This record gives sequence, structure tokens and C-alpha cells, in this order.
Amino acid sequence: MLAKKRILIVGGVAGGASCATRIRRLCEDCEIVIFEMGSYVSFANCGLPYFIGDVIVEEDKLLVATPELFKNRFNIQVCTDTEVISIDKDNKSIIVNDKKSGQNRVEQYDSLVLSTGASAIWPGIKGIDLPGIYALRTIPDSRKIRSALHNIKKSVVMGAGYLGLELAENLVKRGVDVTLLQSSNQILPMLDKEMAGYIEKHIEKQGINCRLNSHVSSFKQNQDQSLTVSLSNKETIITDAVMISVGVKPRVELAIQAGLKIGEHGGVRVNEHMQTDDPNIWVVGDMVEVQHVITGEWTLFPLAGPANKQGRIAAAHIVGHEFSGASATMSYRGVQGTSVCGLFDFTIATTGVNEKQLKAANFTDYEKVYLHPSNHVGYYPGAKPIHIKLIYNSKNGKVLGAQALGESGVARRIDVISSFIQMNATVYDLEEAELCYAPQFGATKDPVNLAGMIAANQLRDNHPLARWEELMDSHIQVVEGSDEVDAADQLLALILDDPYKQAQIVDVRTVAEYQNKHIPNAINLPLDSLRERLGELSVEREIWLVCGVGQRAYNATRILQQHGFEVKNLSGGMQTYHSFLDVQI
Amino acid sequence: MLAKKRILIVGGVAGGASCATRIRRLCEDCEIVIFEMGSYVSFANCGLPYFIGDVIVEEDKLLVATPELFKNRFNIQVCTDTEVISIDKDNKSIIVNDKKSGQNRVEQYDSLVLSTGASAIWPGIKGIDLPGIYALRTIPDSRKIRSALHNIKKSVVMGAGYLGLELAENLVKRGVDVTLLQSSNQILPMLDKEMAGYIEKHIEKQGINCRLNSHVSSFKQNQDQSLTVSLSNKETIITDAVMISVGVKPRVELAIQAGLKIGEHGGVRVNEHMQTDDPNIWVVGDMVEVQHVITGEWTLFPLAGPANKQGRIAAAHIVGHEFSGASATMSYRGVQGTSVCGLFDFTIATTGVNEKQLKAANFTDYEKVYLHPSNHVGYYPGAKPIHIKLIYNSKNGKVLGAQALGESGVARRIDVISSFIQMNATVYDLEEAELCYAPQFGATKDPVNLAGMIAANQLRDNHPLARWEELMDSHIQVVEGSDEVDAADQLLALILDDPYKQAQIVDVRTVAEYQNKHIPNAINLPLDSLRERLGELSVEREIWLVCGVGQRAYNATRILQQHGFEVKNLSGGMQTYHSFLDVQI
Repeated sequence: MLAKKRILIVGGVAGGASCATRIRRLCEDCEIVIFEMGSYVSFANCGLPYFIGDVIVEEDKLLVATPELFKNRFNIQVCTDTEVISIDKDNKSIIVNDKKSGQNRVEQYDSLVLSTGASAIWPGIKGIDLPGIYALRTIPDSRKIRSALHNIKKSVVMGAGYLGLELAENLVKRGVDVTLLQSSNQILPMLDKEMAGYIEKHIEKQGINCRLNSHVSSFKQNQDQSLTVSLSNKETIITDAVMISVGVKPRVELAIQAGLKIGEHGGVRVNEHMQTDDPNIWVVGDMVEVQHVITGEWTLFPLAGPANKQGRIAAAHIVGHEFSGASATMSYRGVQGTSVCGLFDFTIATTGVNEKQLKAANFTDYEKVYLHPSNHVGYYPGAKPIHIKLIYNSKNGKVLGAQALGESGVARRIDVISSFIQMNATVYDLEEAELCYAPQFGATKDPVNLAGMIAANQLRDNHPLARWEELMDSHIQVVEGSDEVDAADQLLALILDDPYKQAQIVDVRTVAEYQNKHIPNAINLPLDSLRERLGELSVEREIWLVCGVGQRAYNATRILQQHGFEVKNLSGGMQTYHSFLDVQI
Repeated sequence: MLAKKRILIVGGVAGGASCATRIRRLCEDCEIVIFEMGSYVSFANCGLPYFIGDVIVEEDKLLVATPELFKNRFNIQVCTDTEVISIDKDNKSIIVNDKKSGQNRVEQYDSLVLSTGASAIWPGIKGIDLPGIYALRTIPDSRKIRSALHNIKKSVVMGAGYLGLELAENLVKRGVDVTLLQSSNQILPMLDKEMAGYIEKHIEKQGINCRLNSHVSSFKQNQDQSLTVSLSNKETIITDAVMISVGVKPRVELAIQAGLKIGEHGGVRVNEHMQTDDPNIWVVGDMVEVQHVITGEWTLFPLAGPANKQGRIAAAHIVGHEFSGASATMSYRGVQGTSVCGLFDFTIATTGVNEKQLKAANFTDYEKVYLHPSNHVGYYPGAKPIHIKLIYNSKNGKVLGAQALGESGVARRIDVISSFIQMNATVYDLEEAELCYAPQFGATKDPVNLAGMIAANQLRDNHPLARWEELMDSHIQVVEGSDEVDAADQLLALILDDPYKQAQIVDVRTVAEYQNKHIPNAINLPLDSLRERLGELSVEREIWLVCGVGQRAYNATRILQQHGFEVKNLSGGMQTYHSFLDVQI
């Protein structure tokens, strides 16, 4: 046997703990030590908002593993309350500080794993350090908030990502009146704006005051211990507490001090084995930069699932574990962007890229479809819609991303699409997917099939799609822009006659549906009488079709296309129209 | 434009209706006629058991589309109550019988689609035609049963596939005392026996009397209108009604009369475009044979999902629709065996092949793992186990099949695995899958990841697996076979000393868990003290490890393997032990 290999792990939560135990499983003979600056290892970070909300009642439940378990089961030494303060790469040693004794000591390593995670971003706002302002990253953080709750009637939550919304929900569950402040023009930045709009409406129904485009300029403490939050637009909000959830940043101080390569997003750069540019140092978890499988770009993706996988992969590489076949070799495949969040009986999930990311990357060869199928067949009681946006490569059909939200069956469909993305699948694969069907569980054409079918039909030129943005732009031009052009009578006349540029909007729903609510200037020509009334349509002008959710308009598209009309479907129908209208894209 | 193509479709439910509407979308100019021998087209077959159970209350809900809708929306003529009685391939014509007028007429076609489905198998048992004996395939069937229900206090359900069990559940919901008779040694033949055992226990808890290996020899009507069901073992059951659900057979009379090629399973043989050996005839749905994507074998798979997909594919081929790219060409990829069933808050789902099918095909290069993860992290309230069996190719890791059951999250995991199977994935792909995780929705290592990790560890030689069947065989040899060998003292001594052939069973759970229940002759060596007690184990003998669900034993496997022991893990732990024990495999 070789001399004992000494492996030190800095940080004992998701990535570090996962790495340590896997090293032990692969190497009974290694010496493994975890250094954790906090008092807990392997705690359930993702459960903290639900501990605030009393959904999880016992704090002990949040402790996934204790130092004793690491010792007894895995023969891993855990040093809690121990901070690693520097790395000496050349001598393969670190200096650690025992926070209880205050003493420093040097520890030698053969391999070093950094998994120090990310810390909450505290924006540099005047008064940010006042009592009553909290961030939630650790068990002690959650204790502080819980013990303050009896004095919190009103709270501001600053930042509307997953954590901010989970916190908002859990505060509402505890009877707190919540104002959510978001600096950008939408909540949930992992979604596109028109999809986030559904959730904005949903959380407002639950009593959350959701304020977009809100920038905090200062916090001030009042005499009664309440806080005044001043916004850049001069408004003020009086509140009992502020929860900061504007994001996290990689904790890379040690990595920087050691001279490891840092990427443009501030995370450590590693290879596919999670190894840094120093061959004896590996980095996993929230502090690492990862490549997105769709865009190929480096990014940060601070979630527990990837951290655990990265920990396993680093472990295998550290112990030099050889595998029988190439396919069995463990390497990190990059991040797909899969995530999920539950909010007041709604589920929001996404995988791959969103449209904003594609636009930011100047990638234009994409198409998108919107659909609103039920989670299961309508004839079985309790069917609920799932709102889906599927994005795919318009040249080759490759699936690029999906966003979905609804009350039931959402994570299932996103997990399926995520699996297909992982396998480099196309919308034709989604179309043919053989998925679970019984009346309680889906439909003979599952929402995933439907998304694939709609997209495949578009690619096969059976189903040309119009983009809502174009309609909305035109629409705004008419409704809001008429003053600007009223000097040019001729142009005004043209616009009024032809409000949606060249297109004529034809609503193929029933007369009653149309009369209830419709797009301005749309004409009504119900699908079931369309064939008899073709003469009412002009072949000179492109026709954009709309119905309830897109299905009738698809049938109408096929009819008109075969009769020689230039025609496009407004994907997702009036449901999607409203989602665009509500967020005024 | 060409002369109008005339397309006749025989059968107007899932496959036929789907084919007809897609033909219309692709060909506005075709003449399309559907002939349906029943009174309804496009009805929700799969909803019928729930209509019996009053879960679906209104009969109208079962009508997905009416002849009027076909006419108005799709310009498709539907002839209900019209039976096609013969096909003249040479003259491209059929003879149809209008059941209302009794008149026959000839209809010409350019293309003919057969989608006559399958009919319930009525076994040739004496008395099978007695009143009170029902099968459920159509809306009129369901009406008959519903109207008889007030007189049904007890019912026998004969056949324990999905339909039989759904019927049993719905009868129980209506207050009926149900006896379930199954001729084979397990319910739910799409599962392996040890997996079906969970459901046998579950439905018995719900009051269903589940009798395996039960063969009905005759039915007899009693004076009070009740029925006596006689079994081949001479037992009798008095009941008010009998539901026959022993399977379906393809309705191929027309196809046979026309001389179309019929396969070994009695279904029509078609190519990947659903075209028969007559180039003008296509067949879709329950009456067609399909190739299994894993085994390559022809089979029947009478489910609505495939029928709908096949209808679309036939439609595209019939109208000669050309696509831009090869990947966009529509052809049927074969059947994967994905299915799902809900029973009393339990979900059962499966995809790919089961072990019985592999054994029947003499395919031995497979391995299997059992696991019992929770649907979501344990610290979030309401976690429920999912019992999973994953089967994969032991040479290359390709995923071959999976079975899962539990109260929540079951269809989701099977849909994910089905998607991976479709893309020809390996267990290494499952291991790395990036799936939705938040505390309510899963775990950082999702059940699908875990299944992949356990399998991948086995393939990487980190995790040798023992098979429960071998242990059970040995076990039975000791407990039940000791009388037979008592003449050979030497052999007996050997067996008593070494009950599990060469293996020593080591239970690595805690002392308390072990004392509560354990495998006979297993010794107890808790994981957390294993390293100190290695001396108690013999290196001469193979060690088979067991724990609660397999995880601690996996850790023990790694410890012992690296200390030079020959060791295997009994996958799935005591949970799986009991599932084998209960069904006495």
C-alpha cells in the first residue's frame, strides 16, 4: 500500500461533504479532514426558508449529517468553527484558525478541495447594517429571523429570485405583510418576462405587494425600532424588517490569495474534473464557474444539485480512480440551468436557456412556442393548466430550453425536457416521446409531446408562427403613438387601416369568446365557419391568427395556408396575449 | 390541383380520429370519411373505469369529439353505426353496412386506414354469457354496469392488469365488495413479481380480496340472480357480478379477410410508416403489432398514447408529406413499454423491459438495482418512498427498463427514464442528469440520479451486487429443505454452517434494527463499528451485506472490498428482502 494520502476539504456543506464521503468510499486508506468555518456541516441550506415559515418545525431536521456521523461512519475528521486563512500551494499546506481557541496551525495536504460556497450579497446601501436587516444563508441566520418574528408585522423582501420569493411566501405564512422589491422589470430572472408575469399576478393575489423597478437608496431606523426604506423615486416604506436576497457571490478570497485562476463572473475556473490550474487543488459548488451546455459560456449556477455532482466527480479524480470504459469516466458535463421553485401551490420550473440569454448571446436561430395544456385530460376531475414556453434551434430543431409553471405536473415536464436536452435531443424527439399516460396523469399527447409537435410542425413549414412582440410593438404604436404621427395624415391613415404593420389579425374563436375580450382591431371569423367565409379575407395581406390557446388557430393556419393565404399563428393564443399585455413587453 | 384523394378510415376512436384530423391538416383537399361501428367517435376509453366509480360523473365528458365537430371543424364525414364488412384490395373498395337501415353499400378509396382497435377477450368458460357478467370497452358497456350497480354488493373481477385493477378500485369506491381473480402468480403482469407484491399488499389493505393462481372453471346463475364462480381447485365464490378483464385481442377480422399480413401475436404487421403489405392500406392503434425498442421483438401494446402517435405518422405518409430534413421525417420508433396506473393513492409506472421479458428472450447481460428513495428530501414534511427497480445492460450500461411505485413523484421518474431510454442513454447519463430540485420536489440526488449512481458504481466495480433470488433459493433450501437432506449428515452440516451457499450474510444496521427483524442466519455488524470489527469476518467466505434500503450496506461494501474481502451488496436492503419474501419468489 502507498503512504497515506492526505486530503483536506475546506467547507463541509453540499459539495464538500459529498466529495469527502465519496473519497472515503473510493479510498479507505486516505486521510480526510474537513474544515468548516461555521458550527454545522452538511446542513440543509435549501430548507431554511421553510424553517422560517414553520413548515419545517424542528431545527434538528436541517442537520443532514453531524461531525460524529462523519467520524464513525466515514472515518472523516470534521473541524467545525475552523477557518482556513491561507493556502501555500508550493508547500501544499494551509493555515487554519481554530475560532474557539484563536490559535493558528499549519496543515499539510496531498490534495486540497475548496468548497466554501457563496455568501449573500449585501448591497452597499446606506444603513444596510442596521438591526432588523437580515440575510438567510445559515442556520444561525434562520434562528435570528425566527426569534425576531414576533416583532415583525411587516417586512420588505429585497430581491425576487427563488430565495426571495420562498422567503416572501414563508413570511406570509407567518402572518407577515410582505412588500417585495425588485430592481429589474420582472421577478424570477431565470424566466422570461412574459412567463414571470403569471407569478407576479399569483403572488399579488396572496397578498404580497410586488414592486418592480424599485431601487433602495437608504435604510433608516426609526424611534419605534421600525425601519424606513427609501427608494430612488423618493417613495418610502416603513417596515419592521428587511430580508436581503439580491443574490450570492462566490466566496473566493482563499482562491484569490492562492493565485488560482478566477473567471469573469468571479468564480474559480476548473477543468471537467473540477481541478484548478494548480494540479493539487480542486474546487466544487457555488464558488466555481461552470460552462452552460447550451451556450458554452462560463456562468455561475449556485445550486445544491450541481454541487453534489461536482463533489463526486472531484473525489473520483483525486483518488485517480480508473474506470473500465470511456463512457464510465466521471467528468462534469456542464450546467443545463434546471431549477424549480414552489410558491403558494404554484410550481415554477425551467431548464436550458431562456430567450433573454439567447438575445444576450446574439443567437438568433431560435424559435419559440407557447402552450397551455392541462396537467391531465380535461374529462378527469381536477385538471389544471401548465403554461409552457419551449425554445428550440430553428435550423436543426435542437431543444434549447423550456419554462413551465402551473399547479401540478410542472417539475415532471421540465425534468423530461431536461433529460432530452442532456441527450442533445430535438423537438422531433419530444414529439415522439412515449410518456406515462392514464387519465389522472396526463394525456395521450402529453404536454411535452404537444410542445414538440407544435415546434416540429413549425419546422416542417406546416405551422408558421408570428411573434407576439411584433404585435405588441405595432399595438403600442397605434394606441400610444398616434399623437406623434398626427402631423403626417397619410401615415396615420395607413397605420389606422393597417395597425399591425402588414398583418390582419383574425380571431377564430366563437363569437361569444371574441365579444368577451379580444385584441384591438382583430376581426372575428370562427374556425368552424372559416371554410365558408374565406372570401372575407384578403390574400394581399398576411393574416395572423389567434384563438384561446393556439390549437384552433393552428387548424385555421392549416386551412388558410392550403388556400393560398400568407398566414401565421400567434402561438399560445389569448392566454399568451394576456401574459404579454400584463407585463407590457 | 390533383383530383381529390379519397381516404377512408375504419374506426373513429384514438388512432383513427387522430389520423383523420391530421390528414385534414395536411391536406385540405382530400375527402375523408370515418366509419365507426359504434355510436360514438373519439370517446375517452381510458376514462370508463372512473365513470363506473363516479369519479367522472357526466357521461358527456367522455365524448372528446362529436361527428358534428368532425364535420364543422375538419370537414370530415363520420358514419357512426356503420360497420365495414369487407375490403376489396384490388378494386380499392370496401363494403359497409349501415346498421340502422341494414343496407350495404360500396365505398371506393385511394387510401384506407384501419383502426378498429381491440376487443375484450371473453374466455371460453362455461356460463360466460350469463347475465351479470360484463366487460368494459365502450360507453354502452359502462352504462350497463352503472345501471346494474345498485344490485351489486359483491363482484368478482377476473384479470388483474391495469383495467382489472382500475375497475376493482372503482367498484370499491362504489361500496362493492371485490374479489380479484388472477390466473398467474402475480397481479400487474407488466411488473416483475417482487414489485407487484407491494401492490398486492396495498390493494388488500383497501379491502380487495386478491387471489392469485385462480382459474375459473365455470359460471352458474343461482335462483336469486347471483352467480356462482367455480374455480379449478373446486372452491366456489358467490357473487352478484363478474367483470371480465383478462386482456384484449386485436380486431383483425377485416384485415385477415383482406389478406393483410398478420404477425405472430395476432396483430397486423406494418412498416415504420404504419403501412401494411398493401401499399394503399395503413393500420394504427390496438390492432397493430409494434416492435419493442429494447428487445426488437414484435409485440402488442394496446394503449392510447401510441395509437395517437401512429395515427399522426400514418397521416403524414398517406398524404406523401415531404419534410425538409431526415430527422424531421415521421416514422414510428417502436414501443418502449411506458405505462402508468393509479390505484388508491398509489402510482405504478414502468418503462422499457422487465426482467421476465429479458429472461424470456434469454438475454443474460443485464444487471438490476433496487432502491427506495423518498419522493423528496426527508426534512421537508410529507416525504414518501418510491420503490424503484432499474434494469440495465451489464456490458455497456444502457438503460433497459425501470419499474416504480409509490404515492408521489412516480410518473415523473419513469417519464425521465423513458426519455433517456428513447435517447439510447446509459446509467452514466442517469447519474449525471440535472433534474429539478427544491425541498418539496426532490433531492440533490434525485431518485433517478441515485438509480444511475448505484448502477454506475456496480459497473465500475465499486459496488458488486448479490441477487436476492440466490439468497431466497438458499434460504428456502434451509428452512424448507432440511428434511430432504437429513439423510446426508455431512451435507446438512455444511448447509447449516453455510446456509447461503458460500456467502455469509452481514447485516450492517444498528443492533436495534437487527433485533427487530433480520434475515435468518445473518450476523449483525453495525456499519459505524465495522472498521473496528473487521477481524470478526472471515476472508475465506464471500460476504453479502444488507441494511435498510441498501445505502449503508453500500458504504460497508466499499470498506470491506478495500480491506480485501469478497463482498456483495444485497441491493435495496431489507425493504427489497421483504418484497421477495412476501411473494416467495
